[in-house]
Amino acid sequence: MTVTRIEADYLIETAFDPRQAAAAMAGEQSSGTFVRVPQQTAELEMRAAARVEALIPLADAAVASMPGARRDDDTPIRRAHVTLSWPLDNLGPSLPNLMATIAGNLFELGQFSGLRLLDMRLPVDFADAYPGPQFGIAGTRRLAGVADGPLIGTIIKPSVGLDPADTAALVKTLALAGIDFIKDDELQSDGPACPFDHRVDAVMAALDRVADQTGRKVMFAFNITGDLEQMRRRHDKVLARGGTCVMTSLNSVGLVGMIELGRHSALPIHAHRNGWGYLSRHPQLGFSYVAWQKFWRLAGADHMHVNGLRNKFCEADDSVIVSARACLTPMFDHKPCVAMPVFSSGQWAGQAFDTYQALGSADLIYAAGGGIMAHPDGPSAGVDSIRQAWAAAQAGQSLAQAAAQAPALRRAVETFGG
Amino acid sequence: MTVTRIEADYLIETAFDPRQAAAAMAGEQSSGTFVRVPQQTAELEMRAAARVEALIPLADAAVASMPGARRDDDTPIRRAHVTLSWPLDNLGPSLPNLMATIAGNLFELGQFSGLRLLDMRLPVDFADAYPGPQFGIAGTRRLAGVADGPLIGTIIKPSVGLDPADTAALVKTLALAGIDFIKDDELQSDGPACPFDHRVDAVMAALDRVADQTGRKVMFAFNITGDLEQMRRRHDKVLARGGTCVMTSLNSVGLVGMIELGRHSALPIHAHRNGWGYLSRHPQLGFSYVAWQKFWRLAGADHMHVNGLRNKFCEADDSVIVSARACLTPMFDHKPCVAMPVFSSGQWAGQAFDTYQALGSADLIYAAGGGIMAHPDGPSAGVDSIRQAWAAAQAGQSLAQAAAQAPALRRAVETFGG
Repeated sequence: MTVTRIEADYLIETAFDPRQAAAAMAGEQSSGTFVRVPQQTAELEMRAAARVEALIPLADAAVASMPGARRDDDTPIRRAHVTLSWPLDNLGPSLPNLMATIAGNLFELGQFSGLRLLDMRLPVDFADAYPGPQFGIAGTRRLAGVADGPLIGTIIKPSVGLDPADTAALVKTLALAGIDFIKDDELQSDGPACPFDHRVDAVMAALDRVADQTGRKVMFAFNITGDLEQMRRRHDKVLARGGTCVMTSLNSVGLVGMIELGRHSALPIHAHRNGWGYLSRHPQLGFSYVAWQKFWRLAGADHMHVNGLRNKFCEADDSVIVSARACLTPMFDHKPCVAMPVFSSGQWAGQAFDTYQALGSADLIYAAGGGIMAHPDGPSAGVDSIRQAWAAAQAGQSLAQAAAQAPALRRAVETFGG
Repeated sequence: MTVTRIEADYLIETAFDPRQAAAAMAGEQSSGTFVRVPQQTAELEMRAAARVEALIPLADAAVASMPGARRDDDTPIRRAHVTLSWPLDNLGPSLPNLMATIAGNLFELGQFSGLRLLDMRLPVDFADAYPGPQFGIAGTRRLAGVADGPLIGTIIKPSVGLDPADTAALVKTLALAGIDFIKDDELQSDGPACPFDHRVDAVMAALDRVADQTGRKVMFAFNITGDLEQMRRRHDKVLARGGTCVMTSLNSVGLVGMIELGRHSALPIHAHRNGWGYLSRHPQLGFSYVAWQKFWRLAGADHMHVNGLRNKFCEADDSVIVSARACLTPMFDHKPCVAMPVFSSGQWAGQAFDTYQALGSADLIYAAGGGIMAHPDGPSAGVDSIRQAWAAAQAGQSLAQAAAQAPALRRAVETFGG
């Protein structure tokens, strides 16, 4: 698990000899030049060049995945897994410069009709340079008052259009229904139609009133996405008002924004990955979540979105599980940086069973919208149905066994199970 | 040109009725919900919903560009241009929240086998909320001492591996060769092998010595990419040492990093787009540069990379010209936010003619590596050849005409023109 050089794994697709193509990647991303210059000595290469550490050929592709690559008409299109490595001394333990090094110009190289970053392994210096999640699973459970099983969550809907009072009224309903976690939509931050400070005041007043009855303060992830000073100010507002979570959109704020927030935050950071589609949607381009989520965990993300089984989006179930497992896999021995995976999109009680079976863990946030609000017996029964499902799944029961014993779950199956 | 709502244009690919699919995009990115909730009133929709403003059908696609989209086997795959609009009140003039709104979850929607953001138009509130380029063309020309024609530039090569003294020696050679602009490679920031402060001191000492002879200080773009405090400190170091430009990698620092740098910087910001391939490489996914570069210009980018004609990467020539023209096109009447396009990759004197003919402007940085360093008569002749080519192009001459009169250019044609 310990590496002294930076290592990155790629899926490549090329009409060239894959070894040549991999060498071109290594050159482009380190000390290679197209026109050799006198300064490019063997000693310099030894010191600074990226190395091809491994190359595993895969089956040829029938057609090129991306246009623009160089190719003779009759050359086969080859695919391979490639591992490159870099000396840490080229860049030091810097996440932004790591991004430029392992995921910079290489996607545009003429040799490739496909190139995807699959995974990376980092020297421990990175663990020392960045905060990582400050709360993770244990801190989130403590603040949410949920010792075991998933945090049952939901999202404020409609995403935008509710004012602070409407939002607080909905939050009260959900909190009284027994939910553990609520989040703003990623479209709702601090627009004139629903000012952030007013929303925080109204929502926290509602959560405090419910907590007076129930003894438990529901965790609400306020979307603080914005410019840096706005994010800091909004975070401080949430903290001062007794809130227990902030949310940010990773592709909106970028690495520097997330790193600064990670250093500033005294609350768990719920990291939203909206825009992930453009980074990952084509299987021969961009990023695997296994690689990508490591940047954000190191920067300080406590919760990472992973979609859900049988979601409304395009992602396949096995990809969802691989992503969630990645978030739960330690990055460094002395600093695991484990983040809580967030399941959402089309979720109801029914997916609890195969989610638990595939993942082997209930250290997660399980967010449902319709699966709670559209339960025929109301939101409280919706929350109950999901909690019943997870308890049964963790006890080794099937959905059918559990539904026979739990009325709220049975009604959920009748409603959503078709 | 003036809009009161946020507008975005997309290329979509779908097996559904494109009008239905466009409505789903608008719903997902505003007040739509998959399971209708009581709060979703007609009044709320009127106030907060995104609207489909235009839909232009295109020719059907033969096969789906991306996997995972929903489709019956026998439905045709349609393509269309779609324009959506949003009320500014949903988010306010916030670039990070704009990103989540117009380029968030929609790329993953099950209705689409392709989705690409083509362009956007913003209410003037955005111009008031962000600095935009502080130097642009005029400020860059003033600091570089280049009144007319392109800034002739180059990149330190090898990208990594040179120490500060080696770098300064190369800089001295290039400066004495008459170059206008030199940049760090995006792989070189502040690694232990070439510490930033030492590099700045050595490079600026070399440039000062040359300026004592020539009366002109070459502009050097020092790569300050890093965490926020690191970037600020490195910027301040460059400024204190008399440097005239800083560089950052946009996809490494993200919007918040660039916005903060834009607000802090007292120097032109040279914006590197490495990683652009994963955002744009598939023509049915991600971003057009026409849309994407607007985010960064508003945030403060003075120079924007656009690749070059007949480059070593995958980008086609017409795309390069469209990108460069976009950077030179004003965004707002009272605040044009024009950035200087940076041509690079495989450039030598030869492309000056069709670049100028296609663009109709010489307000650009023209960066060559081998085209300067590998000129058979040395770097000085390399710089001369490019300057001769641009002067001739701007005077309406052809490459052949110009080469007949200009020895350095003629030698460049003999060497690189094959």
